[in-house]
Amino acid sequence: MADKLTPRSEDYSKWYNEIVPRAGLADYAPVRGCMVIMPYGYALWENIRADLDRRFKETGHVNAYFPLFIPMSFLEKEAEHVEGFSPELAVVTHGGGKELEEPLVVRPTSETVIGALYSKWIQSYRDLPVLINQWANVVRWEKRPRLFLRTTEFLWQEGHTAHATREEAEEETIRMLNVYADFAEQTAAIPVIRGRKSESEKFAGGVASYTIEAMMGNCWALQSATSHFLGQNFAKAFDITYLDRDNVLQHCWTTSWGLSTRMVGAVIMAHGDDQGLMLPPRLAPIQVVVVPIWKEDAQRATVMAAVEEIQRSLSDVRVEVDARDEYSPGWKFNEWELKGVPVRVEIGPRDVEKGQAVLSRRDVSGKAGKSFVPLEGLAQAVIDLLEEVQRALYDRALAFREEKTVDVSNYDDLREAVSGHFVRAYWCGSPEDEARLKEDTKATSRCIPIDQHVEPGVCAICGQPAQEKAIFARAY
Amino acid sequence: MADKLTPRSEDYSKWYNEIVPRAGLADYAPVRGCMVIMPYGYALWENIRADLDRRFKETGHVNAYFPLFIPMSFLEKEAEHVEGFSPELAVVTHGGGKELEEPLVVRPTSETVIGALYSKWIQSYRDLPVLINQWANVVRWEKRPRLFLRTTEFLWQEGHTAHATREEAEEETIRMLNVYADFAEQTAAIPVIRGRKSESEKFAGGVASYTIEAMMGNCWALQSATSHFLGQNFAKAFDITYLDRDNVLQHCWTTSWGLSTRMVGAVIMAHGDDQGLMLPPRLAPIQVVVVPIWKEDAQRATVMAAVEEIQRSLSDVRVEVDARDEYSPGWKFNEWELKGVPVRVEIGPRDVEKGQAVLSRRDVSGKAGKSFVPLEGLAQAVIDLLEEVQRALYDRALAFREEKTVDVSNYDDLREAVSGHFVRAYWCGSPEDEARLKEDTKATSRCIPIDQHVEPGVCAICGQPAQEKAIFARAY
Repeated sequence: MADKLTPRSEDYSKWYNEIVPRAGLADYAPVRGCMVIMPYGYALWENIRADLDRRFKETGHVNAYFPLFIPMSFLEKEAEHVEGFSPELAVVTHGGGKELEEPLVVRPTSETVIGALYSKWIQSYRDLPVLINQWANVVRWEKRPRLFLRTTEFLWQEGHTAHATREEAEEETIRMLNVYADFAEQTAAIPVIRGRKSESEKFAGGVASYTIEAMMGNCWALQSATSHFLGQNFAKAFDITYLDRDNVLQHCWTTSWGLSTRMVGAVIMAHGDDQGLMLPPRLAPIQVVVVPIWKEDAQRATVMAAVEEIQRSLSDVRVEVDARDEYSPGWKFNEWELKGVPVRVEIGPRDVEKGQAVLSRRDVSGKAGKSFVPLEGLAQAVIDLLEEVQRALYDRALAFREEKTVDVSNYDDLREAVSGHFVRAYWCGSPEDEARLKEDTKATSRCIPIDQHVEPGVCAICGQPAQEKAIFARAY
Repeated sequence: MADKLTPRSEDYSKWYNEIVPRAGLADYAPVRGCMVIMPYGYALWENIRADLDRRFKETGHVNAYFPLFIPMSFLEKEAEHVEGFSPELAVVTHGGGKELEEPLVVRPTSETVIGALYSKWIQSYRDLPVLINQWANVVRWEKRPRLFLRTTEFLWQEGHTAHATREEAEEETIRMLNVYADFAEQTAAIPVIRGRKSESEKFAGGVASYTIEAMMGNCWALQSATSHFLGQNFAKAFDITYLDRDNVLQHCWTTSWGLSTRMVGAVIMAHGDDQGLMLPPRLAPIQVVVVPIWKEDAQRATVMAAVEEIQRSLSDVRVEVDARDEYSPGWKFNEWELKGVPVRVEIGPRDVEKGQAVLSRRDVSGKAGKSFVPLEGLAQAVIDLLEEVQRALYDRALAFREEKTVDVSNYDDLREAVSGHFVRAYWCGSPEDEARLKEDTKATSRCIPIDQHVEPGVCAICGQPAQEKAIFARAY
C-alpha cells in the first residue's frame, strides 16, 4: 500500500473510487463501462447470491437459464418497454461471419424472451403459478460508469413469475420485495425503506414498481432492489394464456424482480470509514483474520502452534491466517482493516504464555474495540463478537439514516434539505413536480413508503392536495 | 405424456432430441442456435457446478468475473487464436444508440481479456501463481445446433492461471485434467480417457491441449472437458510479465481449462435407456421419489402419515413426494422413470400395515430392481441403494466402453470399426492422416491417451513409424 487511502470523511466519492480496486473488489475492464469483479469482490457476491438463493428456494422458486440474445422485434412488442430500454441497448449485427437478418439485442432484462417461452410452456391453470429465477449477466449501455453502481455489464438475478389472478401476482410482488428487505437488513446490515416508485421512476412496461431504498454514507439514496407488478402487459404482448377451471382462455398476470451487483456497492457505501471497508460478518468473505506476532524466530513455533489451534476451533467461521513474513503486524492490521474484515485475532508469545489472545473488532477503533480473551473460550467469543458486529453495523446505519431524515412541508425547505438528507414530504405524485425538483436539485422521489398512515395533506412542491408522503433524495 | 418416447435402442439421436425437452431439461430459444435451460436441467447443472466448484477451491482456486465484451483487436493479438475463433464470433457493432468505433466480440473464451488484466495485476514473483476461475456464459456461433451439445450460447467455467515456470504451468494443466476426470468418474459416473489432443484438434493459440473423452450410448465420443497448456503464447501477446527473485523481467506461463453445459448432454447420453433418463445419484436433482398409493379416500390419511415419516427420515437426501391426485401410480412411475430419478419408494395401505415399503431402482428394470424393505431401516436402505446405483451406472458404462473398444493395426480395419467403436491404433500424428480418416469416415482422433506404455510401432493409417497409440472415433 504505497499511497494513503483518501479518508471517507474528506472526499466520499474519491474514497469509493480508491477503495474498490485497492481492496481487491473490482477493476475497470478494457471496454469502457465494463467491470472486472476481482476475487475478493466476487466472494462477496457469492455470499450475497447464496443467501438470496436460499431465500428464493424457501419461497418456492426454482432456477433456470434463458438466452443472452433477444430478437429486436421482441422488445418492440411492448411499446413502453422498448422506449425505456432503447437508449441502453447493445446490438449484435453479425454472427458466424455474416450479417444477421434481424439484429439481436444483448439482454438488458428478460421479460420479453421469457414471455415468449412462458407462452409456450403455460397451457392450463394446472401449470400455474410459474415461479422461476435466473442468475445472469445483463447489459445496459452506460455513459457515466462507476464500479458496481453503474456499469455496462453487470450480474444480477431476475425472477419472473406468472399467475392465474391479479391478487396472486400482487402478493408475489410484495413477497419478493420483503425477501429483498429482509436480506438487506438481516444479512447486509443495511436498513431500507420499502416503497412504491413514482410514475417517472417505474419499470418501463410495468404497472407498479416497488423498491428498497437505502441511505449511503453521504446521505444519497441507492435503489437496492426492485419488484415489479407487470399486470397483463407482457402476458398480452406475448400471448401468455391459460385455460382456467371452466375451460375459458385467460391471460396470466406476471411479475419480475431483481437484485444486482449494485448490492456490493451498497455494502461498501453504507458501511466503511476512513480506514476502509467495514463488511457485515454475514457477507464478509473473511470473517476473522488471525495475525500471529513474534520478534525472534525462536518464538515462531510456539505462536503458530497456538494459531493452528485457534484455526481448528473456528471451523464454522471463514477464517484466514496471515503468517506472511514479509510484512509487519502493523502493516497487516492496516491491510485487513482496509479490506473490512470484521474481527481480528492477534496473538504473540506473551499471550500464548498467558493463555490468551487479543480480539479486535473492525467497527470500533482504538482500545474500546479490543479485549483480551482466554484461549479456552475464544471460539465462542469470536462467534458472539461477529453477531455483535453484525448488529452494531445495522444499528449504526439505522441511527445515521434517522439522523439524516427530515420532514418538510414546503418547497424551499425541500430544496435546501435534499442535498444532504432523505426528505419526507407530502407529494401529489405529479410528474411535473418531480421534473421541477430534479431540474432544481438533481434529486428525485425515491419512493412512496408502503408503511405510512397519514391523513391527506398538501403537496410540498405544488400545493395541490396529496394523499401520501414520499421520500426525496439525491440518488446513485 | 401424450406420445410415446422413441426408444433409445431404436433411434438414439431421435431419443435424445425427444427426451431433453420432455424431461424438462432444455428447450430451443427463439434465436436459432440458442437454448433455454429449464428448471430440471438447470438443477442438474447446479449440482455439477457445486461439485466442481468445491474441487476447484480445494485445489487453491478462487472465482472472479471478467467482462462479456472483448475488443476485436484483442483477439487479433494472438494469430492462431483469432484464426480459430473468427468463424464463430458474435459481434456487437452498436451500443447506446451509436455505432461503436471498434466492434466488440461477445466472448467465445476469455484468454485475451483476462490476459490484459493479468498483465496489469501481476508485477512480481510474489503475485504468482494466479489461480482464478470464472463461471460464465460464452457465445460461439453454431450452424448445426443441438441442445447442450452444440449451442450458440452455453454456460461453462473457465480457469485461467499464470505461473512463474513452465513446470508449474504444466503441472497445473494436468492437475485440472485430473480434477475433471475425477469429477466425471466419481460424480457423473462416466468413465473417461485422459489424453492429449492432436495438432488439428488442439486449442487455437495453445501449446498442448488435454481432454477427457467419454463414450456415449451410440459409441460416439464426447469431449467432456479440456485443459490447455498455453506456454508463453498469451503472456507474450498480452505482456504478462513479472520480476523474478533476481529482479529480472520474465514472461509468465499460463494455462486455461474448461467444462461446460455439454456435461449435461454427456450425462444424458452416457446413461439412460428406452424408458428415458438414468441420472447418477450424486447429480440427480431428485434422488428419491416417493409415490403413495391408495384406492379409497379413507386410506389416504394412513398412507400419507407413513410417507411423511419416510420424508422426515430422508432429510439428507433430495426427495420428492408425488401425491398428485390427478395421475395414477402407473403414470407417475413412467414419468419419474423418464426423468431418471435413481430410486423410487412405493407405499400402499397393505405396506403400511406390514410396516414396509417397496424400493425400486431405476437402473434395473422389472422385479430384479424391486425389494420390500422394512420401514424402520428404510432411510439407510435408500442411502445404500443410491450408492449402489451410482457404482452400477459407472460399472455399466465402463463395461460398455470396454466392449466397444477395439485395437486395429491397419487402415481397412480402422475404417470399418470406427463407426461403432473407440478404435485404438498406432498413429504417427500426421495431420494428413487425420484429414484422410475424417474424409473417409467422419471420425477423428479423440486423443493420445496419457496412460500408455507401448513400444514404438507402425502407424495404422500411413505405415510410417509411430511412437504412440491414439483413440479414434466419431464425435459430437
